[in-house]
Amino acid sequence: MPEAKRRMNIAMIGSGSIARAHCNAFLQVGRFFDVPFSLSTKVVCARDRSKLEAFATQWGWAETALEWQSTVDRSDVDVVDIAVPNTLHAPIAIAAAKAGKIVLCEKPLAISVEEAEQMTTVVRDLPNLVWFNYRRVPAIALAKRWIEEGRLGKIFHFRGSYFNQSGIDPAKGKTWRYQKSEAGSGAIGDLLSHLLDTARDLVGEISELSSMTHTFAAGRDVDDAVLVTSRFANGTLGSFEASRFGVGRRNGLGFEIYGSKGSLAFDLEDMNRLKFFDAGDPPALQATRDVLVTGPDHPSSSNFWKPGHLIGYEHTFIATLGDFLSALAQNGDFHANFQDGLETQKLMSAIQISATSGRWTRL
Amino acid sequence: MPEAKRRMNIAMIGSGSIARAHCNAFLQVGRFFDVPFSLSTKVVCARDRSKLEAFATQWGWAETALEWQSTVDRSDVDVVDIAVPNTLHAPIAIAAAKAGKIVLCEKPLAISVEEAEQMTTVVRDLPNLVWFNYRRVPAIALAKRWIEEGRLGKIFHFRGSYFNQSGIDPAKGKTWRYQKSEAGSGAIGDLLSHLLDTARDLVGEISELSSMTHTFAAGRDVDDAVLVTSRFANGTLGSFEASRFGVGRRNGLGFEIYGSKGSLAFDLEDMNRLKFFDAGDPPALQATRDVLVTGPDHPSSSNFWKPGHLIGYEHTFIATLGDFLSALAQNGDFHANFQDGLETQKLMSAIQISATSGRWTRL
Amino acid sequence: MPEAKRRMNIAMIGSGSIARAHCNAFLQVGRFFDVPFSLSTKVVCARDRSKLEAFATQWGWAETALEWQSTVDRSDVDVVDIAVPNTLHAPIAIAAAKAGKIVLCEKPLAISVEEAEQMTTVVRDLPNLVWFNYRRVPAIALAKRWIEEGRLGKIFHFRGSYFNQSGIDPAKGKTWRYQKSEAGSGAIGDLLSHLLDTARDLVGEISELSSMTHTFAAGRDVDDAVLVTSRFANGTLGSFEASRFGVGRRNGLGFEIYGSKGSLAFDLEDMNRLKFFDAGDPPALQATRDVLVTGPDHPSSSNFWKPGHLIGYEHTFIATLGDFLSALAQNGDFHANFQDGLETQKLMSAIQISATSGRWTRL
Amino acid sequence: MPEAKRRMNIAMIGSGSIARAHCNAFLQVGRFFDVPFSLSTKVVCARDRSKLEAFATQWGWAETALEWQSTVDRSDVDVVDIAVPNTLHAPIAIAAAKAGKIVLCEKPLAISVEEAEQMTTVVRDLPNLVWFNYRRVPAIALAKRWIEEGRLGKIFHFRGSYFNQSGIDPAKGKTWRYQKSEAGSGAIGDLLSHLLDTARDLVGEISELSSMTHTFAAGRDVDDAVLVTSRFANGTLGSFEASRFGVGRRNGLGFEIYGSKGSLAFDLEDMNRLKFFDAGDPPALQATRDVLVTGPDHPSSSNFWKPGHLIGYEHTFIATLGDFLSALAQNGDFHANFQDGLETQKLMSAIQISATSGRWTRL
Repeated sequence: MPEAKRRMNIAMIGSGSIARAHCNAFLQVGRFFDVPFSLSTKVVCARDRSKLEAFATQWGWAETALEWQSTVDRSDVDVVDIAVPNTLHAPIAIAAAKAGKIVLCEKPLAISVEEAEQMTTVVRDLPNLVWFNYRRVPAIALAKRWIEEGRLGKIFHFRGSYFNQSGIDPAKGKTWRYQKSEAGSGAIGDLLSHLLDTARDLVGEISELSSMTHTFAAGRDVDDAVLVTSRFANGTLGSFEASRFGVGRRNGLGFEIYGSKGSLAFDLEDMNRLKFFDAGDPPALQATRDVLVTGPDHPSSSNFWKPGHLIGYEHTFIATLGDFLSALAQNGDFHANFQDGLETQKLMSAIQISATSGRWTRL
Repeated sequence: MPEAKRRMNIAMIGSGSIARAHCNAFLQVGRFFDVPFSLSTKVVCARDRSKLEAFATQWGWAETALEWQSTVDRSDVDVVDIAVPNTLHAPIAIAAAKAGKIVLCEKPLAISVEEAEQMTTVVRDLPNLVWFNYRRVPAIALAKRWIEEGRLGKIFHFRGSYFNQSGIDPAKGKTWRYQKSEAGSGAIGDLLSHLLDTARDLVGEISELSSMTHTFAAGRDVDDAVLVTSRFANGTLGSFEASRFGVGRRNGLGFEIYGSKGSLAFDLEDMNRLKFFDAGDPPALQATRDVLVTGPDHPSSSNFWKPGHLIGYEHTFIATLGDFLSALAQNGDFHANFQDGLETQKLMSAIQISATSGRWTRL
Repeated sequence: MPEAKRRMNIAMIGSGSIARAHCNAFLQVGRFFDVPFSLSTKVVCARDRSKLEAFATQWGWAETALEWQSTVDRSDVDVVDIAVPNTLHAPIAIAAAKAGKIVLCEKPLAISVEEAEQMTTVVRDLPNLVWFNYRRVPAIALAKRWIEEGRLGKIFHFRGSYFNQSGIDPAKGKTWRYQKSEAGSGAIGDLLSHLLDTARDLVGEISELSSMTHTFAAGRDVDDAVLVTSRFANGTLGSFEASRFGVGRRNGLGFEIYGSKGSLAFDLEDMNRLKFFDAGDPPALQATRDVLVTGPDHPSSSNFWKPGHLIGYEHTFIATLGDFLSALAQNGDFHANFQDGLETQKLMSAIQISATSGRWTRL
Repeated sequence: MPEAKRRMNIAMIGSGSIARAHCNAFLQVGRFFDVPFSLSTKVVCARDRSKLEAFATQWGWAETALEWQSTVDRSDVDVVDIAVPNTLHAPIAIAAAKAGKIVLCEKPLAISVEEAEQMTTVVRDLPNLVWFNYRRVPAIALAKRWIEEGRLGKIFHFRGSYFNQSGIDPAKGKTWRYQKSEAGSGAIGDLLSHLLDTARDLVGEISELSSMTHTFAAGRDVDDAVLVTSRFANGTLGSFEASRFGVGRRNGLGFEIYGSKGSLAFDLEDMNRLKFFDAGDPPALQATRDVLVTGPDHPSSSNFWKPGHLIGYEHTFIATLGDFLSALAQNGDFHANFQDGLETQKLMSAIQISATSGRWTRL
């Protein structure tokens, strides 16, 4: 007879598009991951009452709330999930931590290094997670595994980019993501932060960087595009580029990694695949392998469908949560956590400093 | 205030891998499709008690049952879903129909035309569905839309194939899919039936065909591979090939369609994309478009995630169910239904006849 | 000091587009292949005097001629190259052979098996070649090498197709390739013959086949499309499809080969690449390799440019001639020769017979 | 009757691998381009007598010479072609110009801005060319045409890279390309110069830049890798990356260009194709077109083979020469000329300055 699962009540703050992805993960994780917790979608909190009710009904939340402050303090809540504009991450996370909750926070962690440090300090004895969900794209997790196994040898180059075309849509320009007061930055926080987290995850820490930013659209106070050149502590050269003016790209996060023994390439718009070149193959066979990362023997492949059966965007959230809960059950480490969010925040800050000064910045 | 939804209790017969996909759809459809039904996973029925309990717990079924006969007769069941080996489709579907239930049946519909005809007759006044889920791959639905809009003009060629490598695995050869008594046929029912349904959906009825089958593995009584050449009623030439010995392919359903105004190509292992060549473009611009079918203005794209965010295998089941329930609410037509399953069964039978006789067969 | 090369005078019959490719090979072969012959473009023969002069000037022919009969008999001619409509292949080849010339003939060899047999008989003691140039696409030659090395194991499936869109152009319909009297057949001789030669080269002889042909365009007396299912002597199942109504394809010869140890795929519109799946790789690494067949250690790669530097259509003619001359110098075997052309002619004939009878045909 | 062509005697200095490509162009240009010149491969000059003779025989040079000084002064020479290490470009080009010859020079033009300026001054009244051959890749020429037609609108981003793996081969490290005294720089001159020329050709002049360089291999005095971020005068943001440590890439020059109306992407290892996204298409049809740039109505497509028939590396040299000679016949402008080579040299110099200073550099 299976052990009874520990009930875990969730309070989710936010009901926008990213909240849908979080909440789908709460509902689905137990069906694909064997975790000793039974998640309950207890209460969802947002400001717009009419939309909130529809959201709660559609996604099966037991209750709704209009104020996050009282919500995070509820004694029947175990987990606070933050899915609101960046500027609210810090106050909610800090309040939740003070109330002793497990805290899950959408990326980027904060809008300043100071906030991120404070948040990281306050959650230090609590389970915590930042939704850098792309770490759980199976192809990215496989890249990490292969790098750790030494299949790439010494890494010479990390070359990452993240393009979408959101910036050319005037309607989007009015949303919170395009306001410094709500978002803190533009392409840096929205797009580049994902790439920075990926680079840290796969290659390691960046030690110095030079950057430029640009705002194409009149009247905006955030960056539309950002370019970075950098050196990692291990000697890898890193280049990063993110833009909301990448016409034709919808969710175009990609990277290439070149090492002494091989290379890798990935594109999020083709997320079930990882390209791998093995320089150890005999010369005539040396070629880029187009690996369909759906198993066998691939990250998360035993959790979802059979080999050859693709997964989608939402599964990265489910797998993030699955790994988090597994780690929690075993008192194991989990990444990306608030500390990871803080490290990325430091990079984001250094990028803004370098873009302003026109100088290299050390970390 | 939203209207109350009509509760619909599901009984699912089966707890294997395809049952997981069905049951995920029952749980998820209401979150992605606005349908006036509230689905309840009432009872799951299977023969292996120990696995059944684990399955029911993991997927949230209220009850379990060991015998399908009594289960389909329960007065508190509205829908019977059939997810068992092919040979059981007919008896369960017929019993469910006699009990007045909505009947959902895994493909292929049956193991003979006679069975399929009987099943189709008995459900004629009941809502019914065959899980030819690939009709709801957004890229395939988009192909259908564009063909109906005339973007391909007169269709010259349908060229379809479905390869996987399941046949080379001796362990799989012992499962029910490799026994004539359980499955009725091999690659024909398992793989080719999907392609035939796709061809009917996109091009129309086949009027004559010639085929060959082959069994590579010693000791098997079903076909490992099947090749078909055919003519459609509208003059299109059709070629079909399916095999369980397509080493390197995991779920390789694909097709190319060539028409007077353009052409299309699709590969299920890259299911979020549709290739389209528009012969009406200026010459220098004529090229294959690689359409990322995640919106805007693509089938199901408003149901799932934002443009550029991929969906996976399971979403084809969710969208099948979403469309079925929408049609049900509006007393509209739904395909693929049992009649479609019957038409495909006739093709499967003609293929077996032609393979035996070495002659062309008319339909 | 290098040995003096033996001068070899060429007479080319024809000045159309394929003649350009042949004659480019005569001029270029000595620059890329180390052969002990010095080829001289002695005389080009064609019916249209004004075009002929321009052609001869542009391509550096020493002389022109209007009648092939006297041209092939010239004592100062060593090699007769045939680049004219199919119906003229036999008379010219036979006359050239009777005059003791080396005979090079454009594909398909003839318009009937009888002709092809006669031609093959008459050249039996003379060096001879059929321009099945695609055997020397480096990727196809690499496929052959890997199959011979056993990298594919037992071959289950050969699946070939050749689509272009020439048939939809009314202007092309008036050229000799669309007249039975000049061409003998339509897509069969023009397109399918290449695929059949490729299949024989890579897999072996076909022992039985079933086919259908169709003419889409009104008023044509040749086939626009042909479909074939077949069995090879070694047990491989073969499917073939060729059409001039493949809208969007310009020169779309392609194949997939599935074997017990791996699979291969090729597309002539991407001719510098060969796809290879190695089932012997560890499971997590099993994937399709996208081999850029430009070296090192690839067929012809040391003859042309450095690895990563692509070659084009014309190089397949140069490499065909280079291999032919190398074999000639060493009294070695060369393929494709007239015997190969005859075997393909037998297949073409069997295909026409089966298409008419609707029955399987044995070879 | 065709006009007699003007004879043009070529002296080529150099007999290495790039000399092969030049000399193939001299021999082939008249067969594919209708130019009023008859090129004669008069004399080839190189230091290694034994290799030189073999080269001259293989490629049909009338004479050989061991000293370039006397060769460029010969009164029977019309054209001097420079295909030697970078450090010799300036003295040979200046001598040839002083002797009144047409001067063709391999890229990069020189090893310093001073040299390049002097060279540009001295050829100012003579026809001159720098072999930035990739401008004549049909796909790149098509990109230029489409940009000039406004199909991309305002250009936001140019993102270029050029990776090969030459640096990991110790044997290559001993060749002249890896010695500062012979080459002037490493990846900058060898690889990046091509990209810079492409960027100038497609987007325009760069006004400021920041760069970093790195040498991975011990004991080398040239850069193995270089990264650049930049602004073009027209407001485009540019990023450039070139490396000899791009394991898995053989000749991987590529770029993406994003504009307000569309985007383009190119990869030299797939040189017959250009990817184009047209933001003016209806939403459901917006997609990347994979344009096979072999005609109809594409640059050079009427010169080479029929649509669908690929060309290779060498054709870019033939087309460069074809355009040069056509311009010469019509007293028209030709690019890339020495002035273009000089502008790229200035960029290369600015890149080295910025890499050393760690500061942005204005041009």
